[in-house]
Amino acid sequence: MDFNIKPVDTTTTNSIWCHINQKTKPIGALGKLESLAHKIALIQQKKQLSLNIPKILLLAGDHGLAEEAISPYPQAVTFEMVRNFTGQGAAINVFARQHAISLDIIDCGIKNPNGLDGVIPMRLGPGTKNSLREPAMSSEQIDQALHSGAQLVRDAFNQGCEIIGFGEMGIGNSSAAALITSSILDLPIERTVGRGTGCNNEQLAQKTSILKQVLARPGSLMTPLQAMREFGGFEMAVALGGMLQAASLGMIAMIDGFIMGSVALCAVKLYPQSQDYFIFCHKSASPGHQHILTAISADPLLDLGMRLGEGSGVAVAWPIIASAVRFYNEMSSFAEAEVSQAHE
Amino acid sequence: MDFNIKPVDTTTTNSIWCHINQKTKPIGALGKLESLAHKIALIQQKKQLSLNIPKILLLAGDHGLAEEAISPYPQAVTFEMVRNFTGQGAAINVFARQHAISLDIIDCGIKNPNGLDGVIPMRLGPGTKNSLREPAMSSEQIDQALHSGAQLVRDAFNQGCEIIGFGEMGIGNSSAAALITSSILDLPIERTVGRGTGCNNEQLAQKTSILKQVLARPGSLMTPLQAMREFGGFEMAVALGGMLQAASLGMIAMIDGFIMGSVALCAVKLYPQSQDYFIFCHKSASPGHQHILTAISADPLLDLGMRLGEGSGVAVAWPIIASAVRFYNEMSSFAEAEVSQAHE
Repeated sequence: MDFNIKPVDTTTTNSIWCHINQKTKPIGALGKLESLAHKIALIQQKKQLSLNIPKILLLAGDHGLAEEAISPYPQAVTFEMVRNFTGQGAAINVFARQHAISLDIIDCGIKNPNGLDGVIPMRLGPGTKNSLREPAMSSEQIDQALHSGAQLVRDAFNQGCEIIGFGEMGIGNSSAAALITSSILDLPIERTVGRGTGCNNEQLAQKTSILKQVLARPGSLMTPLQAMREFGGFEMAVALGGMLQAASLGMIAMIDGFIMGSVALCAVKLYPQSQDYFIFCHKSASPGHQHILTAISADPLLDLGMRLGEGSGVAVAWPIIASAVRFYNEMSSFAEAEVSQAHE
Repeated sequence: MDFNIKPVDTTTTNSIWCHINQKTKPIGALGKLESLAHKIALIQQKKQLSLNIPKILLLAGDHGLAEEAISPYPQAVTFEMVRNFTGQGAAINVFARQHAISLDIIDCGIKNPNGLDGVIPMRLGPGTKNSLREPAMSSEQIDQALHSGAQLVRDAFNQGCEIIGFGEMGIGNSSAAALITSSILDLPIERTVGRGTGCNNEQLAQKTSILKQVLARPGSLMTPLQAMREFGGFEMAVALGGMLQAASLGMIAMIDGFIMGSVALCAVKLYPQSQDYFIFCHKSASPGHQHILTAISADPLLDLGMRLGEGSGVAVAWPIIASAVRFYNEMSSFAEAEVSQAHE
């Protein structure tokens, strides 16, 4: 599947900075809020920026690799947590409610979804294959996943959504993220593997040893899409299609932590210009995330030591993004407020 | 003026962590939101935490030292920016409005306040004295300032306010903050001085040279209150009284950046237990701020490269604090949501 993604028009960058610098504050005094407003202004190319109908896509899927001892949580937790999402009891529910962010819960392929209400079914299968033995998904599945993600984002766009976040749930997907990151950035797995949702030292050593075998299985370097197919999850492949579709529609895409970061890394490696539309919301406590951020020179908004997933970092960072847009739209200029400017 | 500040009761710390750890998330996965919820739970000692009637006190005052070449902005900017605050056009207005935080603007001693509407008058004089020549304020003035700050916070408390932030405006007060920080932490002024609201290299060298003379004038080491009296601003001394009063009333005090940080440093040096009630909202881009944070082991919530003052860091951090309280109050436990826990 191909995406038509235009880089943002940077010919307006000077006039955007001029607008920011005329606000009643010293030059640069709002720090990252200023670069964020500039980024959004480049995307939207309009005088009054807007963030209408913010939405988070919470994508869930099971991982065949979870058969191996890579997580201290049983695979059933994917299902149980999705049920928790639909019951409004999880962290992402709390934060989305706090900020009135619309939350869509999508079943991209939970092993056994029986008894789940309130999820959007977009199933690519009953979980991926075990990537220690074979590719996690077929080429038909990854293509279908990209289309599904694109469809979800087009639907949101058609409802007036201008900014869309990507979160995930899937026991085993921090392993998938480590594998994809190691594959794309050619890093040893020890550099990208982490405790996921909470390994102890022994579990981490075991996880690392297993992932080393998984990474070696398909051999030689791969394209980002091949890495996604070999190691990824359905929820990750759907997110990839969603992020690229958001960029192609000129929407703002909010990227969560390590797992969604590894998907964004795929996106940026496939379409470098897609990064113009991506806001990296927080720095995960997962060690692999920093390698992604460094590789694509991304500077996330928050560093709160979070490592939960679910899009929780997106939701917690949301008001910061709104603050950037509000100061850009609402603050008075020196002239309007009759405030003296600095001596040169 | 003396304050009766009780350290928080830490005997409940285990039960608070137990409550946090039963939420449907891996242990520690919400990072700083968890330690923040724990801190607030220690202050409030109740099952359902609350942040009723959040308020920011925006304290303004002029500095006699502004006669010297320490700022690229003319002293009139203090007045002009306060007029901008009352006209709702400044950054703090935008962010307070965004989050429905009540904003009180207090004239603690603007040089010439004629024509200002919508400010609470609590004037200690027409600006401080020039601290290059003499102490910035008299001992009567600092005592009155502490009482004024305490009064403002008591009034807020009586209105039901449970969490109060401190912001400031005063041309020259980044110099005052550097002087106080250097005096209390016994650091050379070169380590604590910064560009303030926007010095260039030449202006910074000049500012540093002047502040070195100011710091040397009174000689020998001083108590925190003496440092505030010698170098501080009326808005800073009022904030000191306010922070200590908040702690004595068991309220949560939200501390802005470098300038309010230097006031919090005074507070903590006077009453170490007051820090139990302080939330450091953001790390300022001003170099002196890191020395304060390190000295009192404070770990601020945000690091967005901001250096504006006005309480802007408080307002931008506010939703993070609210997120901490909301997850503590609203998230389901593993048992409630019937989610499996991790293997040991």
